[in-house]
Amino acid sequence: MSQTDNTPLVGILMGSDSDFDTMKEAALVFDEFEIPYEVSVISAHRTPKELENYASSARSRGLKTIIAGAGAAAHLPGVTAAMTTLPVIGVPIYSKKLSGQDSLYSIVQMPAGIPVATVGIDNARNAALLAIQMLALGDSEIMQKFEEFRKRLAEASMQKNKKVQEKLNALS
Amino acid sequence: MSQTDNTPLVGILMGSDSDFDTMKEAALVFDEFEIPYEVSVISAHRTPKELENYASSARSRGLKTIIAGAGAAAHLPGVTAAMTTLPVIGVPIYSKKLSGQDSLYSIVQMPAGIPVATVGIDNARNAALLAIQMLALGDSEIMQKFEEFRKRLAEASMQKNKKVQEKLNALS
Amino acid sequence: MSQTDNTPLVGILMGSDSDFDTMKEAALVFDEFEIPYEVSVISAHRTPKELENYASSARSRGLKTIIAGAGAAAHLPGVTAAMTTLPVIGVPIYSKKLSGQDSLYSIVQMPAGIPVATVGIDNARNAALLAIQMLALGDSEIMQKFEEFRKRLAEASMQKNKKVQEKLNALS
Amino acid sequence: MSQTDNTPLVGILMGSDSDFDTMKEAALVFDEFEIPYEVSVISAHRTPKELENYASSARSRGLKTIIAGAGAAAHLPGVTAAMTTLPVIGVPIYSKKLSGQDSLYSIVQMPAGIPVATVGIDNARNAALLAIQMLALGDSEIMQKFEEFRKRLAEASMQKNKKVQEKLNALS
Amino acid sequence: MSQTDNTPLVGILMGSDSDFDTMKEAALVFDEFEIPYEVSVISAHRTPKELENYASSARSRGLKTIIAGAGAAAHLPGVTAAMTTLPVIGVPIYSKKLSGQDSLYSIVQMPAGIPVATVGIDNARNAALLAIQMLALGDSEIMQKFEEFRKRLAEASMQKNKKVQEKLNALS
Amino acid sequence: MSQTDNTPLVGILMGSDSDFDTMKEAALVFDEFEIPYEVSVISAHRTPKELENYASSARSRGLKTIIAGAGAAAHLPGVTAAMTTLPVIGVPIYSKKLSGQDSLYSIVQMPAGIPVATVGIDNARNAALLAIQMLALGDSEIMQKFEEFRKRLAEASMQKNKKVQEKLNALS
Amino acid sequence: MSQTDNTPLVGILMGSDSDFDTMKEAALVFDEFEIPYEVSVISAHRTPKELENYASSARSRGLKTIIAGAGAAAHLPGVTAAMTTLPVIGVPIYSKKLSGQDSLYSIVQMPAGIPVATVGIDNARNAALLAIQMLALGDSEIMQKFEEFRKRLAEASMQKNKKVQEKLNALS
Amino acid sequence: MSQTDNTPLVGILMGSDSDFDTMKEAALVFDEFEIPYEVSVISAHRTPKELENYASSARSRGLKTIIAGAGAAAHLPGVTAAMTTLPVIGVPIYSKKLSGQDSLYSIVQMPAGIPVATVGIDNARNAALLAIQMLALGDSEIMQKFEEFRKRLAEASMQKNKKVQEKLNALS
Repeated sequence: MSQTDNTPLVGILMGSDSDFDTMKEAALVFDEFEIPYEVSVISAHRTPKELENYASSARSRGLKTIIAGAGAAAHLPGVTAAMTTLPVIGVPIYSKKLSGQDSLYSIVQMPAGIPVATVGIDNARNAALLAIQMLALGDSEIMQKFEEFRKRLAEASMQKNKKVQEKLNALS
Repeated sequence: MSQTDNTPLVGILMGSDSDFDTMKEAALVFDEFEIPYEVSVISAHRTPKELENYASSARSRGLKTIIAGAGAAAHLPGVTAAMTTLPVIGVPIYSKKLSGQDSLYSIVQMPAGIPVATVGIDNARNAALLAIQMLALGDSEIMQKFEEFRKRLAEASMQKNKKVQEKLNALS
Repeated sequence: MSQTDNTPLVGILMGSDSDFDTMKEAALVFDEFEIPYEVSVISAHRTPKELENYASSARSRGLKTIIAGAGAAAHLPGVTAAMTTLPVIGVPIYSKKLSGQDSLYSIVQMPAGIPVATVGIDNARNAALLAIQMLALGDSEIMQKFEEFRKRLAEASMQKNKKVQEKLNALS
Repeated sequence: MSQTDNTPLVGILMGSDSDFDTMKEAALVFDEFEIPYEVSVISAHRTPKELENYASSARSRGLKTIIAGAGAAAHLPGVTAAMTTLPVIGVPIYSKKLSGQDSLYSIVQMPAGIPVATVGIDNARNAALLAIQMLALGDSEIMQKFEEFRKRLAEASMQKNKKVQEKLNALS
Repeated sequence: MSQTDNTPLVGILMGSDSDFDTMKEAALVFDEFEIPYEVSVISAHRTPKELENYASSARSRGLKTIIAGAGAAAHLPGVTAAMTTLPVIGVPIYSKKLSGQDSLYSIVQMPAGIPVATVGIDNARNAALLAIQMLALGDSEIMQKFEEFRKRLAEASMQKNKKVQEKLNALS
Repeated sequence: MSQTDNTPLVGILMGSDSDFDTMKEAALVFDEFEIPYEVSVISAHRTPKELENYASSARSRGLKTIIAGAGAAAHLPGVTAAMTTLPVIGVPIYSKKLSGQDSLYSIVQMPAGIPVATVGIDNARNAALLAIQMLALGDSEIMQKFEEFRKRLAEASMQKNKKVQEKLNALS
Repeated sequence: MSQTDNTPLVGILMGSDSDFDTMKEAALVFDEFEIPYEVSVISAHRTPKELENYASSARSRGLKTIIAGAGAAAHLPGVTAAMTTLPVIGVPIYSKKLSGQDSLYSIVQMPAGIPVATVGIDNARNAALLAIQMLALGDSEIMQKFEEFRKRLAEASMQKNKKVQEKLNALS
Repeated sequence: MSQTDNTPLVGILMGSDSDFDTMKEAALVFDEFEIPYEVSVISAHRTPKELENYASSARSRGLKTIIAGAGAAAHLPGVTAAMTTLPVIGVPIYSKKLSGQDSLYSIVQMPAGIPVATVGIDNARNAALLAIQMLALGDSEIMQKFEEFRKRLAEASMQKNKKVQEKLNALS
């Protein structure tokens, strides 16, 4: 179903274009799964009204979940979650200052009532896969694709075992 | 729909009964939303086969999502996520040793391919709300209840403002 | 000037009434300096529209600065700063989880363009004194009071020296 | 007013010339706003008397606020704050050792009575903007400039959205 | 004994081939001691069944100890330890995100009942030496080799003293 | 074998009697497994010669492994490891200052050549179980007991599941 | 010499009387060694001029070393070191906020040129012993007392071994 | 006195020749002050007996203080301090793993009775200056040189102010 219609099912948000290199990994996963998505740069601090417009209209525009990436005092995922009833997935973006702790804590430690589904630092790929798992709850075609993905993941992991045996032989 | 059938939609997992005081908050949310759930103690380390049985049968038993709480080297959410295609929500459980950093890092920093949707330390309540947001994607009745919950949350917050004015008057 | 008119010059904000015990220290400083202020509970996450109303009208209502206290993923000061051109002072509120690091990092690490003047963890008293230093830039009466305060502070510190000599004599 | 007179309104302090690359960002903001300022290297530890002279004469020389940047055991902002009644803004300077935690904690955790308005690690730009927000409290011309700055900031953020759409198209 | 038979006495496990550069240091130690070993890439998350097969058959295949290296939410050593009664040695693998704290905490903070013998971050060499100390408990030939290794280690350390004297002379 | 002879197979070391409450958990495990052990207070810093005597004679006195617990700048395990060829197991002891990080880092981050098998903070129980896994490599009776222990551990974990069901029923 | 004259050889400084309970441990050591000392409360921030008077006259008044204890943004030891050529010993004082990291980093991470000899968190006792080691370099009587102290320390440590044997016997 | 005799007054110790680049900064300070010193590589873990010989004979060989630098589980300063009554100065050596926290905590958090005078991470220069301050307590010639050094330090700092003015002019 999701493939025949181009209405985005997932919104990918970031606070600045400097976050694109990290967040594009999520986009690449949706391309792979042929799930329509949209990408937007909206800053929780520099353009709060744009964020409110975006978040409060997200459900009616057909989005099912929003992925928001941010670094440092990373408020974007939490503020988005406060303005929509859709599940919001947060991606803490690494900076050498404080080693990513600031991004992670600002996103994951949300107060009771407004959760953000937080994934690992810079792990936009996992944010997309989590979004797909949510979509798959109501879409058997996506579910089937996800199960195939997991099999390929296991196979790729097993291929790495062979690669390491070769490296090992090269050692001695 | 979810209310007329008693098949659990959400599984709440914890590694030890000492985690119950934290994790019961999730159960109380599901009671409030009249969403059927089940609670289990299964240790990723002490009973790995039970965990495999639980996780690999979760989807066919009708579960839509699993909430797993664990502390210290908190492997339960990640190992569960590896054994099911359902979305898994992780609750890092606080211990004074390392101030909860170990629980949080062990859960949130999952490798690419196997995400865990991590919420704040000890925040089982938010784990349940996140699960409900996922369920609401395919169930308009749950969605309506969730929107009502968010309104009550806002109202309760506004009541606190009045309470503080009284405390303030009592100060001077 | 500030003393003859009851229009609040400073707004003290907090996300929950549980923060009152920490934030009331700021109120007590303003009482001491006879500077009118207001106290409000508004949550960045639970009542985002109330916050927008509050912050966007703050300047026109006569406020000169806003003190915002919050804990954990402490977005209140930063989100307020995004919605007003008044200087915003942030008070990170301690929680045993993560030892206050989450509150501090979420407040101080704001992106370029939207600063929050951050004080020490739980140090609402210093937030009020910083607000007074800002007000004093344009009000010689407040400035004079502040200079007297600093003298009393020095004197109180010197009194502590005497107290310690007595404790020391009691030791031996 | 501030533009027609060359008396510095803000002092930018740093402990060593190696901090200049970070702290010059503050100077560039004041250039942009046409606000007169001065820049000085004074070490709290190597030249404490020069610091005392500087800080104790700051108000009478016409300064309205002081921005002090320092790294590691970063005492400069706090010691300056102890020697003047002007508001002092602290910029923690990053070093790979301890990831900037030492600089941040040494500046922000001031004792009750002597606040330092702390901004993010290496965020001298925000220190300057905070100083401008303080100056704007008593100067409507600066206030107007600041409001225009915030509009430009929002517009620049929205431009980034367009840039990312192009990058995204280039991806597929 | 261990030298005349090629049955591996130690299994070296890693979650991904990207860990090989760190983990090969263990292999090089076993080469030096002529102790047979095997190297495998098995992911606790991507190929959990392979891990179960590997770990549950390890003892019967003749392994005496397993060295497992992993980074971030590093579950491999702990999950392996849960599936075998052999002693498991864990190597936390460094990543710039969180400076290796995540890897270390995820491995060392195991719950009571299932220990992992943890060595320093990236210190696969020490993991191999620890394995050898375990093997030496029941094999006097390995013990003798280990004692000779420790003598060479001391001698190499003393050679470094000479090297430094030369560097020092070159200084002045 | 180990049961019929009273010669200690394991030495439990601690730097101060204040560590006894933590370290006695190791002793209780050996009592349960009927493995002879000895307990000693020797400080790496206050009585370095006693430590050298102890460590250098450990092997000849029949010990197979040494468990050393220490807190803060916890040098005891590493210094012991430097003075014996036996495997040394380190137990980082918690203190509220630095939340146990100092103890953990001082023990686990040993230089290449001299490993310490580190277990979790305060987890003396796991240190004993790790020692038993080492002893079991050469003693089938101990191995059998260890396998039984692991079964009991799994059963106890499953009992906890029942307990939680009861607590849950009591909730509603 | 130091015993027959009452001129203080060591100054014990603290920023507030609330630090007395920690810092009195240093005084008790000097009482034990019969070394004259003085204790003062002077705040680097609240009474900077008093600190300058104290530090700049310290050498001429006969002090040989200064012990300074402080918590949070702990500037007292470093600022004192900047104002005297005497060696300054710093005692980081614990606070639950940030677990003492702020105190430690603010004291130990001094810039090149102005060292502070830092001891462990709350370890005023060690500060006094370090001062005594410095004094002993030029006073054979103090040296002899210090050597006797170290013997008593070793003996006390060995007594603890006996105590633990009794506790152990009581266990079984 | 110290200049006419070549007997080393200070011993500079390091655990490995890889620490030389950091520790040579101490040697350069002693060259500048014409104070005789010696440099040695001795590992607390790889050559414990050499360390004991070195430390226990240090006083009788004429050393007045020992500077010991070490990284990671940095036991060298503490173990040296345990084996001599001379004051020992510790230099924590940085490694990217754990950002130097491990080195710092392992050195500074010594137990009561055996202090190590700890300086900042990689700050061997300050270790040498602290040693000189100790030597100056009993040697007026060194004291005079140290006072001249502090004046040069202040002058060099003031030169940096000029340099920054030039950089600033170049900006605009």
